[in-house]
Amino acid sequence: MKEFASAARDGLSPSQLEMVLREIGAARYHNLHPFHHQMVSGALTRTQMQAWALNRYCYQSVIPRKDSMILARAEDPAFRAEWRKRIEDHDGSDGWNGGIARWLKLATGLGLDAEMVKSERLALPATRFAVGAYLSFCTNRSPLEAVASSLTELFSPVIIGERVPAMLAKYDYVSEDILAYFKPRPGQASRDADFALAYVMEHATTPEKQQAVIDALVFKCDVLWAMLDALDYAYGGKGHIPPGAFNPEEG
Amino acid sequence: MKEFASAARDGLSPSQLEMVLREIGAARYHNLHPFHHQMVSGALTRTQMQAWALNRYCYQSVIPRKDSMILARAEDPAFRAEWRKRIEDHDGSDGWNGGIARWLKLATGLGLDAEMVKSERLALPATRFAVGAYLSFCTNRSPLEAVASSLTELFSPVIIGERVPAMLAKYDYVSEDILAYFKPRPGQASRDADFALAYVMEHATTPEKQQAVIDALVFKCDVLWAMLDALDYAYGGKGHIPPGAFNPEEG
Repeated sequence: MKEFASAARDGLSPSQLEMVLREIGAARYHNLHPFHHQMVSGALTRTQMQAWALNRYCYQSVIPRKDSMILARAEDPAFRAEWRKRIEDHDGSDGWNGGIARWLKLATGLGLDAEMVKSERLALPATRFAVGAYLSFCTNRSPLEAVASSLTELFSPVIIGERVPAMLAKYDYVSEDILAYFKPRPGQASRDADFALAYVMEHATTPEKQQAVIDALVFKCDVLWAMLDALDYAYGGKGHIPPGAFNPEEG
Repeated sequence: MKEFASAARDGLSPSQLEMVLREIGAARYHNLHPFHHQMVSGALTRTQMQAWALNRYCYQSVIPRKDSMILARAEDPAFRAEWRKRIEDHDGSDGWNGGIARWLKLATGLGLDAEMVKSERLALPATRFAVGAYLSFCTNRSPLEAVASSLTELFSPVIIGERVPAMLAKYDYVSEDILAYFKPRPGQASRDADFALAYVMEHATTPEKQQAVIDALVFKCDVLWAMLDALDYAYGGKGHIPPGAFNPEEG
């Protein structure tokens, strides 16, 4: 946070603010994490890949809840109509034909039991704490900060562009079919990030608000990073799986 | 959680419930964590010891807030009068002559800057998320669950009894003086844990409430465990310190 902490002291133009936000992504987005590097290099074990899908499900499943919280706090119908698309993307028309269902298909395609994944009870506690922090953030911080915390989507087309070809090329048990989640995501994420970025550039009109926006994006990068830290520690082969978490060895 | 998940299905006597709670401690308390083993064996680097004190400060500093939340939700004046002692222990008479101040003394005694520690800005995000989850738990769950989540204090005299002699014997830069935090803690923790255990045994009168109490203690063990997971991953020597966190190499 140090390097961005004073960026907004004297106030930034909208395009300067955008530049700072993009620098945060370039320095802190989780495509820089060693776990992601291992994934795209083909080095993950099947257990690591399963643990990733299982834990990431907790994140996916909370996205429409944090977006509903943002909706609930938004007073502008036009904003709500736009933001609502995010919920529709993840929940689909019946709850189980959108992004969450497609993530579940990835998890089951990797050999996990659907009910176990949906129960989230074998996820790492650290995943739950990080995801809970994200939901709390969108509940308790200003709507501007909540919107800004979504801006990691500026960078998600890049990580998906690295992840999908590598998963198909490097892991023989991964098929295009189970990666259906990722197909619409770059388009959706670009649409959503463009809207959120324009909103932030329009509404972060004081140095204090600009700093809050910067801190919100740093916070969100920390959430994603901490999830991979926990995965790497638990499943990196040293036997550091915490008590009660997913452990295929225990059957 | 598996092994305790069905313990309360048919209802437990108060003493059976106590036995289950003690079993959770025997299986999941953080004296079993590899980071604690390294600490008592003398294997921690000075950076690891500093990182532990710095991150643990975030936990210490939230304790009186989570206890205040429990106080705010308690309707019985006698309960509040008893529970209030916990806040007094940590805040002291003026905010800076109780347990938090003594923890700060430990941190500065290990060479850290007091203002940096108090700002919490170099703590691991995972620490913040775990501590935040604890505060949220005491805010959002039932008062019975909030009380039950404090029951890790049943086990804290044991870990302090392992930690203090080992820190003095194995690390030449650790003096009795900087360990002042721990001197009153076993007595305070025993008094507090006895009260909380009696409360839980009296009020967890249905299988559902007993299960909630069990889950609350498991949750709290997960909080403490996840904090050591994050420390071990970040400062275990492999260079996994997340962006923005305490890093003495960066000066």
